[in-house]
Amino acid sequence: MVEIQSSMKQAPKKANPQAEQDAAVNQSLGRIKNKIIVMSGKGGVGKTSTSVNLSIALANKGYKVGIMDVDLHGPDVPRMLGLKGMLGLSENQKLEPMRCLENLSAVSIESLTSSKDDAIIWRGPIKFSAIKQFIGDVEWGDLDFLIIDSPPGTGDEPLTIAQTITDAKAIIVTTPQEVSLADVRKSISFCKTVKMDIFGMVENMSGFECPHCGESVDIFGSGGGEKTATATGVRFLGRIPLDPRVVACGDSGSSIQATYADSPVSKAIGEIAEKVAELA
Amino acid sequence: MVEIQSSMKQAPKKANPQAEQDAAVNQSLGRIKNKIIVMSGKGGVGKTSTSVNLSIALANKGYKVGIMDVDLHGPDVPRMLGLKGMLGLSENQKLEPMRCLENLSAVSIESLTSSKDDAIIWRGPIKFSAIKQFIGDVEWGDLDFLIIDSPPGTGDEPLTIAQTITDAKAIIVTTPQEVSLADVRKSISFCKTVKMDIFGMVENMSGFECPHCGESVDIFGSGGGEKTATATGVRFLGRIPLDPRVVACGDSGSSIQATYADSPVSKAIGEIAEKVAELA
Repeated sequence: MVEIQSSMKQAPKKANPQAEQDAAVNQSLGRIKNKIIVMSGKGGVGKTSTSVNLSIALANKGYKVGIMDVDLHGPDVPRMLGLKGMLGLSENQKLEPMRCLENLSAVSIESLTSSKDDAIIWRGPIKFSAIKQFIGDVEWGDLDFLIIDSPPGTGDEPLTIAQTITDAKAIIVTTPQEVSLADVRKSISFCKTVKMDIFGMVENMSGFECPHCGESVDIFGSGGGEKTATATGVRFLGRIPLDPRVVACGDSGSSIQATYADSPVSKAIGEIAEKVAELA
Repeated sequence: MVEIQSSMKQAPKKANPQAEQDAAVNQSLGRIKNKIIVMSGKGGVGKTSTSVNLSIALANKGYKVGIMDVDLHGPDVPRMLGLKGMLGLSENQKLEPMRCLENLSAVSIESLTSSKDDAIIWRGPIKFSAIKQFIGDVEWGDLDFLIIDSPPGTGDEPLTIAQTITDAKAIIVTTPQEVSLADVRKSISFCKTVKMDIFGMVENMSGFECPHCGESVDIFGSGGGEKTATATGVRFLGRIPLDPRVVACGDSGSSIQATYADSPVSKAIGEIAEKVAELA
């Protein structure tokens, strides 16, 4: 918290800070073609894995991609991307996103705090301001896609995105079990209320193949996401199987698409990225 | 949102509503021996499953237990407990918690909204007020344990609990993988900052036994929670294995402890409840 405040304070004092911030936000957004917020009703459905892997897949296709981690209380993007260190300042006194791949850069609250174990204990209004700074005070440059990893639920963070990025579209991630699907319906209701277009739905952790016997086990069920998508008129983008290698890659900050390019997970992500690139 | 406001408005107008509410909160809390908030850094680690199953196990031991669902954006407690319908009003114009078992009653935001698919789109300050109503305006009665299921992270909900229930203790739930453990360290830092005692840590989804071949697969790893507990000086309460039957029971609102009493999951929960009852 101290760090973000002090970094931000390096810019000279403005006459109307609110108007200046809004102008900076709009200037940043004007250079970004597609803004996609990755949401989920329930936590732990693999929202961050999906955001990170979709970003990598789009960057590998040659698109310029930025990933913005607005999960202020559980910012897992840097770990999954294997990023360390702090953000620097550009010549224009803006924050430089961290470069992960040639076409992929990232900003996360975690890259602004010196101790990775510190909790961010902010109430809603401060989050609103922090997220606007993530857009306006970061040197995003020209992007084809900005992928926004939001915390689960329908609270301050997605609400701030909806109000600040009025042309953002939502990708909703779910697991197949009923408890998760019930929360997805809340995410859909949220998007309708704040008038955010829903780009599509991804079913994650769908089916599991035992690495010992090859038999499949539906740990979290299977197919529920597609059924809910059809029932609610939301485009179904695809199904990503449950694979312990996704967990291991996320933990070690390596990309499953680079390490296990032929795995069913990598293929599923590639197909989803294809649809996003084609339809966005 | 409409319903909670209108239910709450049935009470006559008060001269000093803030002081009246604080008095009602303190009166409710004075009749509750142990207040335990179940937290997690990351979502989807089985926090709600753990809250619900721990509550059932304690109630089955004869303790009077209340469960309060403050996960306003993803209130899964009613579904997991198989609760339907709305809360009623008691003779004192307070809300009656829903009775699940002889010794177990529950309150969730979901029991106050008429459509289960509606999203709760509230910014922080309204959450603060709603949570205080959950304590002061509910007829909890005399309880041995109030188990509070909080949303993941270190945001408005756990902060409100820490500030309102100053003798609440935290149980932190995690899965064994590094991404989850990194967020646990943030929960520990949160508890230290707000001066909340940490009662202990539970490792969930720890190891998986293939139902076809019986071989074990560490989908989310294993043992990481205990290691982190030891390293941070937090009491380790136990390890609950990953079992698709927990998901199925949660989805259908039945209790795994009733349906599969001899399962490793039921035994693990029983042992954790034993420790909670003994040490709280």
